[in-house]
Amino acid sequence: MSRVRVHNFSVSVDGFATGEGQSPDAPFGHAGTRLHEWFFPTRTFQRMLGKPGGSTGADDAIASTWEAGVGAEIMGRNKFGPLRGPWENDDWKGWWGPNPPFHTPVFVLTHHPRPSVEMEGGTTFHFIDATPQEALRQAREAAGGLDVRIGGGPSTVREFLAEDLVDHLHVAVVPIVLGRGERLWDGLEGLEKRFRAESVTTPGGVTHMTFTRP
Amino acid sequence: MSRVRVHNFSVSVDGFATGEGQSPDAPFGHAGTRLHEWFFPTRTFQRMLGKPGGSTGADDAIASTWEAGVGAEIMGRNKFGPLRGPWENDDWKGWWGPNPPFHTPVFVLTHHPRPSVEMEGGTTFHFIDATPQEALRQAREAAGGLDVRIGGGPSTVREFLAEDLVDHLHVAVVPIVLGRGERLWDGLEGLEKRFRAESVTTPGGVTHMTFTRP
Repeated sequence: MSRVRVHNFSVSVDGFATGEGQSPDAPFGHAGTRLHEWFFPTRTFQRMLGKPGGSTGADDAIASTWEAGVGAEIMGRNKFGPLRGPWENDDWKGWWGPNPPFHTPVFVLTHHPRPSVEMEGGTTFHFIDATPQEALRQAREAAGGLDVRIGGGPSTVREFLAEDLVDHLHVAVVPIVLGRGERLWDGLEGLEKRFRAESVTTPGGVTHMTFTRP
Repeated sequence: MSRVRVHNFSVSVDGFATGEGQSPDAPFGHAGTRLHEWFFPTRTFQRMLGKPGGSTGADDAIASTWEAGVGAEIMGRNKFGPLRGPWENDDWKGWWGPNPPFHTPVFVLTHHPRPSVEMEGGTTFHFIDATPQEALRQAREAAGGLDVRIGGGPSTVREFLAEDLVDHLHVAVVPIVLGRGERLWDGLEGLEKRFRAESVTTPGGVTHMTFTRP
């Protein structure tokens, strides 16, 4: 059975997955790069940039599981880009350059659908105005039996969790207090009852928590 | 130099240190006992109850550090008891029975001072209406050069952290989503910059985080 997975989703110890004041220059607002410092040095992230090398310790081992077996991604429009409201044109094609690291169909949830965009390397962005259930149906069909990744941002992950559509959630808890921004956990009281929880801390001080449907 | 320490302070992954709906029958509100399940089996907790036995693994090792070198505790009135407003009488002497586990002077912060209460085993409750700085001055004097523990609840810990009076903070992050209650981290943006952070996860799934002033 095709599973629904969230990977490498970083939050501060006070639960914020992004800071306040997001903009093209600051995709995570006042959080800057602090939520993802653990991720940047990994071989997994360097590969996403098309670069060789990178660390191969426990952080990388955990990060690397984001890719295998995934046949499609669903992301919120706020992950796709910093623009809000109707698209002025179709110029914006994501943060990731001509060859995005997904290499699968990617369904972007938006109230303003626009034509699909085929990128290099197998990534195609589809823009759909759909419920989580309907988006998942389309993504599953496109994934051809493989798993579907929910790529973020926080409101998208929260929505799929609230609808009990997620089978595997990996959260990296970073020991910083962001104070403001968008929280992952809001409205998810009792979430742990639906999952088996595991935690492991890596030397950088990050706690990798996985919530897996038993 | 006498240090100020917080120990065994449990929060949910969404940052709540107590649930909603606190009452005499439910000191932690709807959280019930879920924030402290890791703590109850430890030898440290069993000793606090005056009982023999208990687990002696990593959770206990970390929990056990709460006591040594501490000469006084400061706690908020909401930790001392469930009563709010002026005392109707002096009958309430804490949750802990005739021989509380502190065995030192304990300063209870309240806007309604009342006479000190000497308990068995060396615990004396003093009731003071004081700023964090003034409470700490009194507690340090009573501690005779030893450390001062800030015992909770969340608003008291938060207040001492906000005033930058804490030298060592141990938080046990429990993998549950409480959803509502009182948060530890509110108003403490950037807290980590004043501390060296360490994390370790124990097999029960709790992450013990320590923030220590370098």
